[in-house]
Amino acid sequence: MRCDVVAVGTELLLGQIVDTNSSYLGEQLAQRGIDSLLQVKVGDNLDRMVAVLRARLEEADAVIVCGGLGPTHDDITREAIAEVMGVELEEDAEVAERIIAMFESRGRRMPMNNLRQAMVPVGATVIAQTMGTAPGLICPVGGSGDGDDGDDKVIYAVPGVPYELHDMVERAVLPDLARRAGLASVIASRVIKTWGDSESGINERLDDIIAELEGAAGPTLAFLASGWDGLKIRLTVRATDAETAEDQLGTWERRVVERLGSIVFGRDDETMESVVLDLLRRRGMRLALAESVTGGLVAGRLTDVAGSSDVLVGSIVSYASSVKRNMLGVPEGPVVSAEAATAMADNVRGVLGADVGLALTGVAGPAEQDGLPPGTLWVGVAIGDEVESHLVRLPGDRLRMRQFSVITALDALRRRLLTIPEPVPPTDR
Amino acid sequence: MRCDVVAVGTELLLGQIVDTNSSYLGEQLAQRGIDSLLQVKVGDNLDRMVAVLRARLEEADAVIVCGGLGPTHDDITREAIAEVMGVELEEDAEVAERIIAMFESRGRRMPMNNLRQAMVPVGATVIAQTMGTAPGLICPVGGSGDGDDGDDKVIYAVPGVPYELHDMVERAVLPDLARRAGLASVIASRVIKTWGDSESGINERLDDIIAELEGAAGPTLAFLASGWDGLKIRLTVRATDAETAEDQLGTWERRVVERLGSIVFGRDDETMESVVLDLLRRRGMRLALAESVTGGLVAGRLTDVAGSSDVLVGSIVSYASSVKRNMLGVPEGPVVSAEAATAMADNVRGVLGADVGLALTGVAGPAEQDGLPPGTLWVGVAIGDEVESHLVRLPGDRLRMRQFSVITALDALRRRLLTIPEPVPPTDR
Repeated sequence: MRCDVVAVGTELLLGQIVDTNSSYLGEQLAQRGIDSLLQVKVGDNLDRMVAVLRARLEEADAVIVCGGLGPTHDDITREAIAEVMGVELEEDAEVAERIIAMFESRGRRMPMNNLRQAMVPVGATVIAQTMGTAPGLICPVGGSGDGDDGDDKVIYAVPGVPYELHDMVERAVLPDLARRAGLASVIASRVIKTWGDSESGINERLDDIIAELEGAAGPTLAFLASGWDGLKIRLTVRATDAETAEDQLGTWERRVVERLGSIVFGRDDETMESVVLDLLRRRGMRLALAESVTGGLVAGRLTDVAGSSDVLVGSIVSYASSVKRNMLGVPEGPVVSAEAATAMADNVRGVLGADVGLALTGVAGPAEQDGLPPGTLWVGVAIGDEVESHLVRLPGDRLRMRQFSVITALDALRRRLLTIPEPVPPTDR
Repeated sequence: MRCDVVAVGTELLLGQIVDTNSSYLGEQLAQRGIDSLLQVKVGDNLDRMVAVLRARLEEADAVIVCGGLGPTHDDITREAIAEVMGVELEEDAEVAERIIAMFESRGRRMPMNNLRQAMVPVGATVIAQTMGTAPGLICPVGGSGDGDDGDDKVIYAVPGVPYELHDMVERAVLPDLARRAGLASVIASRVIKTWGDSESGINERLDDIIAELEGAAGPTLAFLASGWDGLKIRLTVRATDAETAEDQLGTWERRVVERLGSIVFGRDDETMESVVLDLLRRRGMRLALAESVTGGLVAGRLTDVAGSSDVLVGSIVSYASSVKRNMLGVPEGPVVSAEAATAMADNVRGVLGADVGLALTGVAGPAEQDGLPPGTLWVGVAIGDEVESHLVRLPGDRLRMRQFSVITALDALRRRLLTIPEPVPPTDR
């Protein structure tokens, strides 16, 4: 089975947006054993879109088209597909109703051109929109046109907005492709998340395990540096059934985790934030933050997690030195220092009413501060009578320095919490 | 003049690497008034590469091929181009010498397959390598084959490593293309940033201006929805010289901005954060934040801007209700309400020591709170004796609700600040 990809949008050709959608699709298709042998970017031009779609359908069994489904005059993917199918567009009443209802629920006036998004090529199936207003389309081309397997080929149209695309591709496109391809094999993967060593460092530690994996018919192992989400190690396995896949993943995951030890902080959907919140929750502890260099990013990340409010009390973003001294009792002297970090972590607990204090003070740059270079970070952790501080050197550009500060501080708190036993839950007897 | 782009590499199709080279090339070509109407990713497969190159040369005057010039067996761009040109490959003695010398100078043994990189299609011109080992190629196709302007079309081959590619493209490819095209024209663009109306709504408001632009030889207009960076409108113009381009952009920018009025918050590199910080700075005002639903994201965004510390004092992230009541004097009753937002905005000024207070309280979901649905946002703005509050309904998914809350609240503050005159700077006389 071959499925090519067409990314639509003049802004892609002009380099105003980098096309990450076709990379995502290439990865998803490859994991399912579907070849994607040509991927094309084309502008918002009807004739060229039609020519590209026809050329792709000559070589591939299926084509995924990303983008050009919006409401404006330059969104013409629907028209191009209808021309390739040799059919007209007609308004889908259900889609139109959903669009109208969405605007009503937000109490906003609906510009009439939004109904362009309800136009569907005759014979196409709609992929219901969940988040945006544009639906996706499954468009059989050739054959009887009734959507049965007897149809020759197929064009899938999905919006170019990445989160809408991901949703529709996972929910509708990949299952439909798998059905058409008669795919039986199962693909499963496991992501192991780490913080505290470089990719090459981890690679070296896992040298013999990687060699074994390459020899055996075991999972493949890949590294994925993901900024402040940590450094990820992905194991991917293809097997005849889900149970076999799960067994294989479990075996190799255990070996990798055992080898890497404490730098592993989570797996799959776990994040540093969710892991730290869980550790606090299981110990019945509430957290207060005192942030300077990160200016609220630690609190912002923790509150991304639904349900964080039972653990996180709040944060004092003490950007001005006056706030550090008046509210958090930071003593005279440099505000990027062990003394400042410990005072902030220690005292924010009393100010906000919490058991645990976590503090960050550092130099984000571009200029140095009190003779300290950008990239300098002091982390303070206060639990009970113990208040500790750590000095960390991070990359010196402002964006990465601040983001790496977030995960570094949370990791320091994680390691500290792991030394505190979980209370044994009371039993009924 | 039309120049298409072919990015070579199976790893691109598998999504292991995102193809940023063709985006860079698209931008460079557009700036010089050269159309790049189709950009293709193809794997390391000779037949498919040859077919893609032939198809591109049928439609375009020139093709830039990125990647596949390395020393290993799957680097076959040279072979593919020779086949398209209908010529043999021969070793270029000068290139071979350079490669050998480079290994010697680093004191490293040279694996023999490196000499593959010295193979050049007969009739092609070498672009000398400066950083890597692979040279680039300028390959005339059709015509007399002697490299003169009488030749029909041309293929440029450059390495896929971005910094090597950038070097060769700027040094050799773009100058050669400009010479062939006899180019003098320049391209320039202007981005107008808005918040407060949908893409389709703005499209409708600009209907006649867009029609005029399409009729005239004026700039092109494109929309770019950019989440919490706002909704952008880009004007792009091609002209004979920079001054004419700037004039045209200025004329049409004024018309668009005049039509859209207060929803325009900035242009080009300005962000909502930088605009709000500037408005405060020019009024000599310092800002304190009280964040609940956004949990620190407003402070996090503002402190992304270097130099924000002269305006932003800090933030109280009052995630727990106890913090809202004890520190910010929120009265008994629901904490997502006009009363809560105004109390937070009003009182945070005194707590942190600032002139202006901005507060956010809302429901991020997934569950409703006090009978209010996810997406409910109350914004409080306090300046002097005036404390106002706004109710806004935002999309209900947690991520977007919180991000849109940030720009919505900053926009409310921006609009309020615009009603306050800037102090007249003291004159010298």
